[in-house]
Amino acid sequence: MLDQALQYAHAHRDEFLQELVQFLQIPSISAQPDHQPDMQRAAAWLASHMQQIGLRNVQVFPTAGHPVIYGNWLEAPGQPTVLVYGHYDVQPPDPLDEWRSDPFQPEVRGDDLFGRGTADDKGQLFVHLKTVEAYLRTGGKLPANVKFIIEGEEEVGSLHLPAFMESHRDLLQADVAVISDSHMIAPNQPSIVYGLRGLVYMEVEVQGPAHDLHSGSYGGAIKNPIEALCEIIDALKDNQGHITIPGFYDKVRPLDPEERAELARVPFNETQFRAEAGIEKTWGEAGYTVKEQISARPTLEVNGIWGGYTGAGAKTVLPAHACAKISMRLVPDQTSDEITELFRQHIERLAPNTVRVAVRKLHSGEAAIVDRHIPEMQAAAIAYERTFGRRPVFTREGGSIPVVADFQRLLGIPTILMGFGLPDDNLHAPNEKFHLPNFYKGVDTAIWFLREL
Amino acid sequence: MLDQALQYAHAHRDEFLQELVQFLQIPSISAQPDHQPDMQRAAAWLASHMQQIGLRNVQVFPTAGHPVIYGNWLEAPGQPTVLVYGHYDVQPPDPLDEWRSDPFQPEVRGDDLFGRGTADDKGQLFVHLKTVEAYLRTGGKLPANVKFIIEGEEEVGSLHLPAFMESHRDLLQADVAVISDSHMIAPNQPSIVYGLRGLVYMEVEVQGPAHDLHSGSYGGAIKNPIEALCEIIDALKDNQGHITIPGFYDKVRPLDPEERAELARVPFNETQFRAEAGIEKTWGEAGYTVKEQISARPTLEVNGIWGGYTGAGAKTVLPAHACAKISMRLVPDQTSDEITELFRQHIERLAPNTVRVAVRKLHSGEAAIVDRHIPEMQAAAIAYERTFGRRPVFTREGGSIPVVADFQRLLGIPTILMGFGLPDDNLHAPNEKFHLPNFYKGVDTAIWFLREL
Repeated sequence: MLDQALQYAHAHRDEFLQELVQFLQIPSISAQPDHQPDMQRAAAWLASHMQQIGLRNVQVFPTAGHPVIYGNWLEAPGQPTVLVYGHYDVQPPDPLDEWRSDPFQPEVRGDDLFGRGTADDKGQLFVHLKTVEAYLRTGGKLPANVKFIIEGEEEVGSLHLPAFMESHRDLLQADVAVISDSHMIAPNQPSIVYGLRGLVYMEVEVQGPAHDLHSGSYGGAIKNPIEALCEIIDALKDNQGHITIPGFYDKVRPLDPEERAELARVPFNETQFRAEAGIEKTWGEAGYTVKEQISARPTLEVNGIWGGYTGAGAKTVLPAHACAKISMRLVPDQTSDEITELFRQHIERLAPNTVRVAVRKLHSGEAAIVDRHIPEMQAAAIAYERTFGRRPVFTREGGSIPVVADFQRLLGIPTILMGFGLPDDNLHAPNEKFHLPNFYKGVDTAIWFLREL
Repeated sequence: MLDQALQYAHAHRDEFLQELVQFLQIPSISAQPDHQPDMQRAAAWLASHMQQIGLRNVQVFPTAGHPVIYGNWLEAPGQPTVLVYGHYDVQPPDPLDEWRSDPFQPEVRGDDLFGRGTADDKGQLFVHLKTVEAYLRTGGKLPANVKFIIEGEEEVGSLHLPAFMESHRDLLQADVAVISDSHMIAPNQPSIVYGLRGLVYMEVEVQGPAHDLHSGSYGGAIKNPIEALCEIIDALKDNQGHITIPGFYDKVRPLDPEERAELARVPFNETQFRAEAGIEKTWGEAGYTVKEQISARPTLEVNGIWGGYTGAGAKTVLPAHACAKISMRLVPDQTSDEITELFRQHIERLAPNTVRVAVRKLHSGEAAIVDRHIPEMQAAAIAYERTFGRRPVFTREGGSIPVVADFQRLLGIPTILMGFGLPDDNLHAPNEKFHLPNFYKGVDTAIWFLREL
């Protein structure tokens, strides 16, 4: 049964790739209202594809936002049930002019497939769909029960997923969840992520004068809202890289020496990190290694800023507004609600009294840590070893997959993060890619995993 | 001759307004390459109109940028020659959604004409064209010789005007220049501006990573270019509002007690200033009055800022770039070259070594002061008094009209700034307007001025 599935998967790689390309051609950008029809199109395409490969009870559930797609195969009595999570929405592709090929006309260059959503997450979700197909098209059955829950709002904070999960607990009940939406350390070094950061994403708007003013006639006697915003942003970190929000670090679970030693054992090449980022020097919180800074410590980043005249040439304006998008990555045991409130209070305190400031939360999710010693983790470790010839290492990841905390909280199940991406996949950036050997090995790994459970 | 001209002007106000509206309907935005055809259209319309009203030798001079329009009437032997300067280009209209009516479909509401360019400068330039028309259509001649030089690059720093002036000194030779491109203190209080600030307009670009990065995977160990830019901007002023660029104030001509007393006599209503700007509190350089801050002291304003994701919703990006447009208003005896260099050095010094910074000059112009006691100033004062029933006050203005310094330097002539705008005209902002009674009184004043010279 396993061998036939593996053979099928190996023989159908070209078809798998062609189908994935079709899926990727739909610009399902959840953040942009213009792409609402594309979101519907992607959901319909996916549901139809799930039915074609033999999943049962495929349903498109409307939500207050983008739909959730569900499907299952539950004919393995006495076997565990795996809940596979993925998302069919993608990040906006801008800046468009930095792409070497059209983000929505995927292109294979060398061993890589380039396009928005290749790694995050359409390609990685496809790994599990093709695993189901390989089993059902050969032996007609799966070695375990599976359920799929695929959402369309991961890139905008999974706004409606927790409510959906709460109202569909029975439908989703399972023994373990599996998510492929993260990356391995290197093509030859599989890794399993056991810790994820949470996220709070805020928007800060500073209002100065009631309308844009001539900087010659008014400049000099009015607080400039861009300058006020820069003042606020500059005050959010000290010169050691520590975040200055009072209370921000109070709930942070300290890294004990044992875990720091374990994280230090994870292969991490700082030279390669700098090369991937295109920087000469790293910069971060004093007292922590780069690996710790990007995975196990909380952070704050300004994701966007705008105000005044930003077109070609010169406009001598003293602007009315300035805005910034600012997000914080959280670690256990910080909670998004508390950090949101501390951030809001701090911004309001920092704002000079010559401007008005508005602080809005755009979305949030909680950090999570999964116990590395449960049997499902070991099944995954074996599956990786069979496929890659090497035991995976266990590591923490800097990104946020809030659904991991939700699965724990709402369904009471642990999550195995089987990431098949690579560190240089350019997630959320121009020239996103998926390493095709990892796509194919991912299918093999997932085929093994269902057997080893 | 004077009476007939005045009568003609009074009888033709409706026609004057209709013609002005035609001129304003051409969106001659010099900063935006898309509007290149509109610039050509505005230049052609203007040249044709100048010929229609009786000016001679009307020519459209191409430049490396937008064309300069020239025309004259020189048949008053023994009389002085006045060089009238104006500009047919306008500021970009954005933010468009804050306009109550289309910026390029001018609308009369109450006593005001709303539209981009109404006050700055098409409407004020029209004052002098209609003055010529009123004299030539009635007596067939003018009481003084006039030359018009009308450029299309004032809003982008008059890049090619100095070179044009240098190569056309004979054509432009005159006894005095007149510009209506500034404002009066109030509808019932005429004023003549004798001092203007200079300008240096810079762009600062901060480059962090080579491309946009996922803030989860990289955030925490890389200097964020938006944060670096905010740090730089925040360091440009101290908490007393002083600009921190070393040497910035070295050449500033101090305000002596006599001039401070004179400026304090100029009617200035701070409550009204705050109401116009829509602010509760002013903020500026410690030790100076608001009137001094906005006219007689050098300033620095951030005119625009952008970087990272600025669209709808949330994108968790650690951006590659951040940019700001930053301009400084200069006073005598600061020079734009020296301030440009001091600014550049200071920015480079402030930039952390974890990012790269590029500093570009977009344009510049020099400050100017004109002697209030020359006879042409007195002629203007009489003309205002005849029309408005009140002597004008002499004041300094915060804006920049670099051509005033150029007229002094290249043609050796003083400039009379006969502004007919008002402080609340929303120059460079949404809902720019021109107070129509000032348009009509402006024509009367200019008719008187030519006689009194």
